[in-house]
Amino acid sequence: MSLLFTPLQINSMRLENRIALTAMVTRLSSEDGFVNQGITDRYVRFARGEPGLIVLEAMAVHGSKSGPLLRISSDEFLPGLTELARRIHGTSPTKVVPQIIHFLKVARSGWRQTVDMLSRDEIRTIIGQYAAAAYRARAAGLDGVELHMAHAYTLASFLSKRSNTRTDEYGRTLEGRLRMACETITAVRRAVGPDFAVGVRFVGDECIKGGYSTHEARVIALRLAQLGADYISLSAGGKFEDHVPRDGQPPYPYTGYSGDRCMPSHDYADGINLYIPTAVKEYLIAHGLQTPVLAAGKIATRDMAEAVLANGQADLIGMARGLLADPDLPRKWRDGQDERVVGCIYCNVCKNLDENFRQVRCFLWPKDSLHAPEIHEWSVPAWPGGADLQAEVRGTSLRLTWNRAAAAAGVQGYDIFRSEDGKSWTRLWAGNMVGYSDFSATAGTTWHYMVQAYDAAGHRSALSNVAVAAMPMPDFSLPQTSESASD
Amino acid sequence: MSLLFTPLQINSMRLENRIALTAMVTRLSSEDGFVNQGITDRYVRFARGEPGLIVLEAMAVHGSKSGPLLRISSDEFLPGLTELARRIHGTSPTKVVPQIIHFLKVARSGWRQTVDMLSRDEIRTIIGQYAAAAYRARAAGLDGVELHMAHAYTLASFLSKRSNTRTDEYGRTLEGRLRMACETITAVRRAVGPDFAVGVRFVGDECIKGGYSTHEARVIALRLAQLGADYISLSAGGKFEDHVPRDGQPPYPYTGYSGDRCMPSHDYADGINLYIPTAVKEYLIAHGLQTPVLAAGKIATRDMAEAVLANGQADLIGMARGLLADPDLPRKWRDGQDERVVGCIYCNVCKNLDENFRQVRCFLWPKDSLHAPEIHEWSVPAWPGGADLQAEVRGTSLRLTWNRAAAAAGVQGYDIFRSEDGKSWTRLWAGNMVGYSDFSATAGTTWHYMVQAYDAAGHRSALSNVAVAAMPMPDFSLPQTSESASD
Repeated sequence: MSLLFTPLQINSMRLENRIALTAMVTRLSSEDGFVNQGITDRYVRFARGEPGLIVLEAMAVHGSKSGPLLRISSDEFLPGLTELARRIHGTSPTKVVPQIIHFLKVARSGWRQTVDMLSRDEIRTIIGQYAAAAYRARAAGLDGVELHMAHAYTLASFLSKRSNTRTDEYGRTLEGRLRMACETITAVRRAVGPDFAVGVRFVGDECIKGGYSTHEARVIALRLAQLGADYISLSAGGKFEDHVPRDGQPPYPYTGYSGDRCMPSHDYADGINLYIPTAVKEYLIAHGLQTPVLAAGKIATRDMAEAVLANGQADLIGMARGLLADPDLPRKWRDGQDERVVGCIYCNVCKNLDENFRQVRCFLWPKDSLHAPEIHEWSVPAWPGGADLQAEVRGTSLRLTWNRAAAAAGVQGYDIFRSEDGKSWTRLWAGNMVGYSDFSATAGTTWHYMVQAYDAAGHRSALSNVAVAAMPMPDFSLPQTSESASD
Repeated sequence: MSLLFTPLQINSMRLENRIALTAMVTRLSSEDGFVNQGITDRYVRFARGEPGLIVLEAMAVHGSKSGPLLRISSDEFLPGLTELARRIHGTSPTKVVPQIIHFLKVARSGWRQTVDMLSRDEIRTIIGQYAAAAYRARAAGLDGVELHMAHAYTLASFLSKRSNTRTDEYGRTLEGRLRMACETITAVRRAVGPDFAVGVRFVGDECIKGGYSTHEARVIALRLAQLGADYISLSAGGKFEDHVPRDGQPPYPYTGYSGDRCMPSHDYADGINLYIPTAVKEYLIAHGLQTPVLAAGKIATRDMAEAVLANGQADLIGMARGLLADPDLPRKWRDGQDERVVGCIYCNVCKNLDENFRQVRCFLWPKDSLHAPEIHEWSVPAWPGGADLQAEVRGTSLRLTWNRAAAAAGVQGYDIFRSEDGKSWTRLWAGNMVGYSDFSATAGTTWHYMVQAYDAAGHRSALSNVAVAAMPMPDFSLPQTSESASD
């Protein structure tokens, strides 16, 4: 039985399944902050895939100048948000909540406003802005609201063991660091009433020097659950403190190691951040709380997602990049069409586009597509003249080439599979070129490869021929030198 | 049955138990590189505790100028090393291997020599130096040798996905990055013969942006095992790339986040790096290799250590800080005197002393002790007038105070225990003061505390009275402001 497709009631919001689109910047908005066509198209596209929950990208509760960014900071944004909610609800049973954010000022010079600079009045203003924004989310017909307490932003900086250098009641101790988050969720709850889903997202491991890890994250989670958080979404990293400075650009979180841990690339093992929800969930249960917990961070396979739920490590599976690559993943998994999923390869081109302030797209989409492609005709890619996959040694890498496939609706890309023994295969990469250099193949193994073409709906060609290649193990013996004989 | 105290044969070296002192700088050596009295005393002290294996702190295979550092770079160091081996062997069945290291130049200006600057001749020289040093280790009567391929040093920088920017056969691909390590272990094996234990230590997760993680670590481990590594010791982080610059000091690894991950503090969960040996061991087994793997990184409790072995996640338990705090831990665990262990609190005072180029001692040792104290008389600490533990609220922290205890041999310190419910207790901290401020206690819980005094042998007083204190849950409701009502 699939736990992924077991509904989950979160306050008055019923999710049809346990897959949630976690908030992901699109850079499709403009500086005015209004919902526009690009935003609408992007989220309606997600809704057609029928995830249980869509968390809309972070929208500002305050009016500070910023780059392209959605806003929920005044009533003028209500009509756009209302229409967006209506469009999503008209598309599928998917529920939708906005992630609401406050952030401090950053300058191109590298200067950043920090939480120790905030007066008590400014703190009260921010809390009021959160409450008003949450109230607007309800007024817009959205199904709940998610308070952004994660990564590099204001509430996260109060929670941070490193960033919060205040010495008043908002800092100094864990209880002090909790205060701002506690006052915010309390004010939000008062604004929206008891029957509106209020979730929180924060990082379970700051992944920076001197930051907190799961020991404190579980205490933060407990407190927010006690104060009525309806779900707890756990991220990691994404901090200013280890950002990589770039000429002429303001500091940007996600550019350093903590950014890598927030969105783990193909270099990392699947589920690298699962220790976080595991620790939090265990602690909540020990304190008698069943508050749903969302796990995220390269949960790439259905098997892993089901196992996380079965093990009680989390109640919701968060995905952003995986749903960007294929918004229809939830529907395909539900309908037993797993093999038709266009699988994220965690290449982080989307992350790099964001870091460079460009519209966020997926490397796997057809060139120039603004959204995940959709086709409805039956279209099975094929190699009329055979795939003719070839593998050859090029120095210390292996070079693959194959023929271009054809399909009625066009070929979107090729999956590349690799095996050490010709029996057990793993998906190595994907792309729309007809060649690939494997820089991770090592000597002394006969590497087996296959490729498979797919169209925009994930219809797949037959597997190609198997190509094999092996680098001979180098001779690592050096002639003995005078150095090794004497000194 | 204890797996920890099951012997392990590593090539011709038989370890009596599975506890290994991992290499830890002492800064007790002088710039001349010779074994001196301080070094001898430190390692003989460790040997009295009877760990299965002592890995001596890194000693240089080359003659470059450096600060205080042991050397094995020429035959003049042989007499000192021979005598050190003899002294350790004369003390207990503990086996001892030196960790041998090559490092590149660093300057106070921040300039660092990097692996792309090395000519092929220089590479050959380094390999020859490793081989000669390993040969000397055997000649000195040491039981094996450990090749330092970890952290920020030369061999690690070749393995690194980030640091290795070479475009020749020593870089560019995983196989290229492996070459230097492969040539080194091959040359070392040829120098020492087949029957001498050759271990390797490298990082299983670089913990820096763009570094490798377990995907590649397992391939590195496989190759080194195939080339005859007799054990594989896995560390994490410790890189130059994220070091914290300090005025007038050359760059020093371990000062950044990757340094925190190398030596996880009390902020981190126990066993935070265990995913590394787990992934490596699984991969080796899948490839038919039984090469022993050493796990390290805040494996703090006997239960965790036994579980790691029982689960097959590793074959050896590495400890450095835990054995610094109490070198007698292996003996005490073996003899069922677990309660007499003076337990490391992972305060990282030792790490900070190293970073500041000072002799490495333990915060838990008596002030001014150069080595872990030893007493042999029977001495049970007691509170003649009662402990009188008091706990009181001070703002958002709890302040504990208690009476000084007395013991024939002197009181070394106090363990502080905490409980949420008065039933399940955890050790919170230790120290030699008679007061403590708990900055991690949160409101709304009645916190229970006990203290216990111990002497240098770990003889313990009775537990103190239980003191309780609770911060009332603050009122997180703010008066509604005009901001929250309108804009």
